[in-house]
Formats: sequence, C-alpha cells, structure tokens
Amino acid sequence: MRRKSFAGMPCPIARGLERVGEWWSMLILRDTFSGITRFDDFQTSLGIAPAMLTRRLSALVESGLLERRRYSERPPRDEYVLTARGADFAPVLIALLAWGNRHFAPEGATSQIVDSRTGQPADPVLVDRASGRLLQAPDYRLAAGPAATASTQRRLARGSRLLAARPDGAVP
Amino acid sequence: MRRKSFAGMPCPIARGLERVGEWWSMLILRDTFSGITRFDDFQTSLGIAPAMLTRRLSALVESGLLERRRYSERPPRDEYVLTARGADFAPVLIALLAWGNRHFAPEGATSQIVDSRTGQPADPVLVDRASGRLLQAPDYRLAAGPAATASTQRRLARGSRLLAARPDGAVP
Repeated sequence: MRRKSFAGMPCPIARGLERVGEWWSMLILRDTFSGITRFDDFQTSLGIAPAMLTRRLSALVESGLLERRRYSERPPRDEYVLTARGADFAPVLIALLAWGNRHFAPEGATSQIVDSRTGQPADPVLVDRASGRLLQAPDYRLAAGPAATASTQRRLARGSRLLAARPDGAVP
Repeated sequence: MRRKSFAGMPCPIARGLERVGEWWSMLILRDTFSGITRFDDFQTSLGIAPAMLTRRLSALVESGLLERRRYSERPPRDEYVLTARGADFAPVLIALLAWGNRHFAPEGATSQIVDSRTGQPADPVLVDRASGRLLQAPDYRLAAGPAATASTQRRLARGSRLLAARPDGAVP
C-alpha cells in the first residue's frame, strides 16, 4: 500500500515514523535485538510473507537502521545487523514493551525488564540524563526547537500534554 | 490493507503495536497530546483522507486509547479525547521524538523537550523508577515474565541487546 510520506513533515515523531511506522518494521527490529540476522530466521519468527519481509528489510537498510552483510558467497546470502542508528531505537521498543505490559497483558507479562541482581521487574520511566529528574510538567515542557517552522510554533504555543503533570503540579 | 493480527502474539511489543502500529495512529495520538480533539482539526493537521481518519479514530476508540464524546447534538458531532491508557502512551512518543531528533533532523530540532527553568534541551533516557539507574546491561536484562510461553523463553534464553551495555560493562 502506498501512502503519504511523512518525511517532509518537520515533526521528529513523523520523521521517525517514516522509517519504522509500519507493522512489521518494529517487530523486525525487535528480532534483531534478540540476535536474529538471517532472512529465514526472521521469517520463522514472524510468519511474514517473503516478499513483504524483503521489502521491509530493504527499507530498514535504506533508512540506515540495518546493514546488509554477505555471509555466504555460494549461494549468495546476506544477513542484516543493527547499525548504531538502529540500536539507538531500543528506547522506543522498551517504552512500547512497558506500555504493552501495563495495558495488554491481562494474564501477566510474557517478557519484561528486570533488575539483574534482584530479579524484580523494572518500571521504565523517562528522565533527563543531565538532571536525573522525571520528564514531567511543569519541570519540563515540549518547546519549539531552532529549526521550528511557523506551523510547529503555532502548534506548540497551544501547549502539549505529552509530559504528564507532576502530582503536586508545583512550579519548580 | 488487511494484514496478520499481532494480538495473538504473546510479546508485549507486538500487542502494543497491534493497537498503534500504523502510520497514522501515532500521529493522531501525537495530535491529541497537543489538544486536538475534533475530526476537522485532525484532518487539517494531518492531511489525511476522511475515510482513513474515521477508521483510525474508531480503531483507537476500540482499543481504549481514545474516548468518543458528543459535543454537539445538532448537528451530531463527536470529539476524541485521550483515555488514561492513551495518555500513558506518551513515553513511546517521547522516545520516538528523541530518536527522530538524533537521527533525522540535520537542520536542527523543530520540537524538543526542554528544561522549563533553563530552556536547555533534555536528553530523555530510560531509568528504573525504583532505583533511578539507567536501564543498561548488565544491571538490567530482558527476562521471561510469569506468563512467558515456551517460545518466548527460548527466544529470551538466547539473550537480548535491547538494553545497551554500560560503557564499563562491569557486573554490578
């Protein structure tokens, strides 16, 4: 299915989605994080049609998230490994994993991030690396960046609820 | 386009994607966080075809991420507001925004999360809420949960690179 490209949109969420905003792409990436690199193994893991898998792998290579490496000359066979850009996608998958566990795992988690020492499930939350503080309003806010277009500035001027309010809500 | 459903997969990433793993769904959610609630406003913001917008909004209502509210009886008009489950999706969008800014904003960020006091861009990273420590290997690991299937256990036993290694790599 062809669809409108998001690449021309200035929003970083839209631009990110342009590269991975497809049902299969994120599951292919998930599998690469668990060490799958070969076409047949992706196919077994995902139950995806070969033509679709070929297309999605090529798109991920084109976007610089996976790198194609020849591992056999006869017959010619490639494998697909995460680039630094692809590996840097992990926090999106972790946030999605945590959300999936919170809302769509009525029978309990099937996989989760745990503290290696205690085995206790972690509760993944976003903080600012510099301060270690939770990304919450009003301490943090979504703001226009240096390259903001007029329409982005208008949108952001209306405010955003992307950052949850701190329970106390006090101005820092 | 019909496609294979991910809802039957035990993986929390797959189950989460089942609800939002579509180009438009995450941009619709993004817009709801900036206060858009009405059909016409989504359409203006996204340039999406009306039939597609209707389908995606209904799917998001069905999955419990948006709630439909009647705001006019004559003519009958509904608006769409985030539920608690939808609002809880914010960390995924923030992680995607940060990744988009890091990799697909050669001209600089158009929007970004900033420290409200200093105006400095935040660097969103995931930590464990309980300990405040970065979700890195080997301190944390991806593990089978109580509801793990045999195939999930096999997959996780092979290890995962979802958590980046701490630079020193020492066992905690």
